[in-house]
Amino acid sequence: MGGSWAPDVSPTSDFSLENLPFGIVTTPDDTSLHAAVAIGSSILDLKVLAAHPGTGLASLFPSLAGHEDVFAQPTLNAFAQLGRAVHREVRSGLRDLLAADTSRPEVLRDSPELREKAILSQRSVRMHLPMAIGDYTDFYAGYHHAFAVGTMFRGAQNALQPSYTHLPVGYHGRASSIVVSGTPIRRPNGQILLDPTAEPKQPITGPSRKLDFELELGCFIARPNKAGEAVGVDEADDQIFGYVLLNDWSARDIQAWEYVPLGPFNSKNFGTTISPWVVLADALEPFRTKPIENLAELQGYLREAKHASVFDIRLEVDLTTPEGDTTTIARTSAKNLLWSFPQMIAHHTLGGCPLRTGDLLGSGTISGPGGLSECGSLLEMTQNGKKEVLLYGMDARTFLKDGDAITLRGVCGEDGARVGFGDCGGRVFSASTTKR
Amino acid sequence: MGGSWAPDVSPTSDFSLENLPFGIVTTPDDTSLHAAVAIGSSILDLKVLAAHPGTGLASLFPSLAGHEDVFAQPTLNAFAQLGRAVHREVRSGLRDLLAADTSRPEVLRDSPELREKAILSQRSVRMHLPMAIGDYTDFYAGYHHAFAVGTMFRGAQNALQPSYTHLPVGYHGRASSIVVSGTPIRRPNGQILLDPTAEPKQPITGPSRKLDFELELGCFIARPNKAGEAVGVDEADDQIFGYVLLNDWSARDIQAWEYVPLGPFNSKNFGTTISPWVVLADALEPFRTKPIENLAELQGYLREAKHASVFDIRLEVDLTTPEGDTTTIARTSAKNLLWSFPQMIAHHTLGGCPLRTGDLLGSGTISGPGGLSECGSLLEMTQNGKKEVLLYGMDARTFLKDGDAITLRGVCGEDGARVGFGDCGGRVFSASTTKR
Repeated sequence: MGGSWAPDVSPTSDFSLENLPFGIVTTPDDTSLHAAVAIGSSILDLKVLAAHPGTGLASLFPSLAGHEDVFAQPTLNAFAQLGRAVHREVRSGLRDLLAADTSRPEVLRDSPELREKAILSQRSVRMHLPMAIGDYTDFYAGYHHAFAVGTMFRGAQNALQPSYTHLPVGYHGRASSIVVSGTPIRRPNGQILLDPTAEPKQPITGPSRKLDFELELGCFIARPNKAGEAVGVDEADDQIFGYVLLNDWSARDIQAWEYVPLGPFNSKNFGTTISPWVVLADALEPFRTKPIENLAELQGYLREAKHASVFDIRLEVDLTTPEGDTTTIARTSAKNLLWSFPQMIAHHTLGGCPLRTGDLLGSGTISGPGGLSECGSLLEMTQNGKKEVLLYGMDARTFLKDGDAITLRGVCGEDGARVGFGDCGGRVFSASTTKR
Repeated sequence: MGGSWAPDVSPTSDFSLENLPFGIVTTPDDTSLHAAVAIGSSILDLKVLAAHPGTGLASLFPSLAGHEDVFAQPTLNAFAQLGRAVHREVRSGLRDLLAADTSRPEVLRDSPELREKAILSQRSVRMHLPMAIGDYTDFYAGYHHAFAVGTMFRGAQNALQPSYTHLPVGYHGRASSIVVSGTPIRRPNGQILLDPTAEPKQPITGPSRKLDFELELGCFIARPNKAGEAVGVDEADDQIFGYVLLNDWSARDIQAWEYVPLGPFNSKNFGTTISPWVVLADALEPFRTKPIENLAELQGYLREAKHASVFDIRLEVDLTTPEGDTTTIARTSAKNLLWSFPQMIAHHTLGGCPLRTGDLLGSGTISGPGGLSECGSLLEMTQNGKKEVLLYGMDARTFLKDGDAITLRGVCGEDGARVGFGDCGGRVFSASTTKR
């Protein structure tokens, strides 16, 4: 397999020719939001490609006939809605255009004028939210995380609720709070019960003292289902557009006081960060593996014909201090899920709930089985603040300080053919001091 | 106070001249979605009014200058975003145009050509969702409901969680599942634990056997707040566009098995019905009253300067059997809330969560203090299925049967000057039988 003719495609780049993730950009020459794919340290501007007199989208990608403006739109929703067969054709056609041994060198590789306009350095473009997200659902499929957190609060015997192994537990999140990587995250104010043992219970209001991250995989829906009609688990892969990394920032002290009986609310709705490039479902196909074995007797609608339904994505979490020192505080794999996204979709739609193009599903926090260095949250890593995580330069944390930045990374495959997500990062800044 | 010259404005109509709620319609002559107001048994088509050569929106309503297409759009979001001062001016101007003693008779009352095109029977138009709803949040502010349900499951001593009187408990709902009055509701399939005492706990999958309604008031957001910035409780009224009735259909058996620890999910996301006409915030101002007294020491951000912050709306619930017999099974008032919508907004935004124009807040189920005939759900009325509700014609229910319809109604004020919501109705049909 050859490489790409595009400039600066390092063997360690997340964005090899095997990846070609889609995103929404603005560029120095075009400040209206539009679509691009990433290749190495560059992007290919798809709006420029589509508008060039010498190309024409439908001649390059016959399935886009009638959809010539699909890459000039401010989100990827219209493209996502066309379905996986179209995504596959377009990604395959782009792969050919960008390959060193392209079958159509005249289109781009050997067209200096178009190359200069359409191939831009990633440093020169700004990334935006890739999709218009109608609804966001966060699941809780990270078994090791759920077990560790449950053990912390209820003991190992009662760590998991009885329903946990029978259905993918999830809750509705806040779509308006989702931001793209790089957006600063304000520490939330909230109600906090400082001493849970004192009576009567009297909360205070102030900045969260237990601000945490959550390492998750996010999944975007391509095709909607009709209200009232369930999606079968073996058809659910066809509903998926692609994947991003997701950091579901969480305020543990606010969460503890508010979440019984209706679930997390202000502890989660102040910000959720996603990586800007959507790795298409097809790009992850080679990295399928088995989920964590579920010993429960599964309901029929959750039984998958395909047994390799999660992805072995190498995940890492970096914490960067206000002083600029970076420590990788966790390493694990996205395979550490009890439930696959097709199972989540089958369950989500079981009662007829309509999923729409652009809806986002989070996996839940992903932790590995191997102890503190594999934890996808500080809650687990520090045993709810009881132990410190040691950082580079004699520093340490229980929860996040103002000025700390968290960066998630995820990558599959070998050097030269990596399929990665790029950075999913955000820096915390101080809480609002408006009078309360 | 005089009445309206519009035809058929009965003294018992919800849509007196004192109301003028806004909605989205399609008409025999115009099948694109656009705005209207209700007056008696008619509508005034605002798109027709705006497009008429003799009128011109900005000459009628100076604050709409530059927004002449605001009523030709498929949702009320653009109008809502203009803010309460504009809503007030437009409503007041429309009131004048429609009054028997209008100061501008030439515009509409004495212009037979425009009247014929712009005043249509409600029977001739179709109603649609009034807003594009980005996020839907459902609160739990109905104190008597929360107490009754808590008592049922945990006893009176532990009926309410310790946080209940300190913060308006809420959870994120599913925006994609909201439908307009009249839309049929499919009974959901779901996981159900038939015998909670048997070990090991093994659920089955099938149609809900405990399908219920919830009587709620819904509130639409007009003005967005910036991410990271809280809305003060005394400024929150200015963020509100208006109100609708809301039926948060609920599957109690699915809910019982799934909701610990992250809250309700499939038990709620198969359908939520709202009434089609948005009663503007100003129209409800005369009906303010005090909420239920809260004995807790409130956090500063929840303390309201205004003590009359809920509305005395007379609420009723009708159950219509498949045979067509209708029984009013509950009567109560919307004043039975522990928390006002301004308090809900202040709490929702405390940590910086952005509310956007068109976002919907539900009050939570509203029940009165007076026993079974004031219950806003069958769960309370039947003690979770233990007692039957007697219906007209020797019939009875514990939960809803296929073919049953639920209609919510709400009205303030006296005959001739009623401010009401119209019907919020939906009929249940049978669950999907797709293989599971």
